[in-house]
Amino acid sequence: MQVDHIGIAVNRIADALPGWESTLGVRGSSPEAVPTQKVKVSFLDAGGTHLELLEPTEADGSVGRFLQQRGEGLHHVAFAVPSVDAALAEVARRGGRLVDTASRPGARGRRVGFAHPAAHHGVLVEFVERP
Amino acid sequence: MQVDHIGIAVNRIADALPGWESTLGVRGSSPEAVPTQKVKVSFLDAGGTHLELLEPTEADGSVGRFLQQRGEGLHHVAFAVPSVDAALAEVARRGGRLVDTASRPGARGRRVGFAHPAAHHGVLVEFVERP
Repeated sequence: MQVDHIGIAVNRIADALPGWESTLGVRGSSPEAVPTQKVKVSFLDAGGTHLELLEPTEADGSVGRFLQQRGEGLHHVAFAVPSVDAALAEVARRGGRLVDTASRPGARGRRVGFAHPAAHHGVLVEFVERP
Repeated sequence: MQVDHIGIAVNRIADALPGWESTLGVRGSSPEAVPTQKVKVSFLDAGGTHLELLEPTEADGSVGRFLQQRGEGLHHVAFAVPSVDAALAEVARRGGRLVDTASRPGARGRRVGFAHPAAHHGVLVEFVERP
């Protein structure tokens, strides 16, 4: 199973992007709104895997609450899978807690689903359907 | 610049590994001690990128302190570079704060160096010399 991207919560994409662009030597994508997750996102290509900067569009979304509680930083890790529903079912089968019991629309027109951090010792895991 | 691995702080590798092995469908490596970082580590292959589970061997190391303050979860992201010293110098050039001003020995016999989370809006960044 391949790492698709690493999600990073930031207060403002415009503030965080230049440092990452300098370190990685690539440009970030134009911010895209993801209304279902109450964020806008910008991706940076890091050799196939991407970094996804997440800026909340509403304070009461999960990224907005994360920033209030923990501040900016690593937020989740996403794996590319052939079927998000099958990956979620596999986590549930071994007793892992889920955020989403079924896949839903995510960024870049791809279906996504989240397992709860409790399922992976504190790490929020996203599954992303392969394009 | 390629993502080499994602570092994850855990209380005990033996407790955290089975869930990751089940989700990723791969086996973790035998734990390796990294005395300079006061941890032992186990790697899981996730399609070229790796997950690195970090268990503190001493409570006063940086991972031990991280666990006391924030609990288990995502700890750092590591990028493979031709020269760790050059990558650290590039972060410093644009005013980014460093943990290491020069490379030092890390896991798997490779040289590593860390930039301070303040240099990337709350994300601890490691550079790892390509094998």
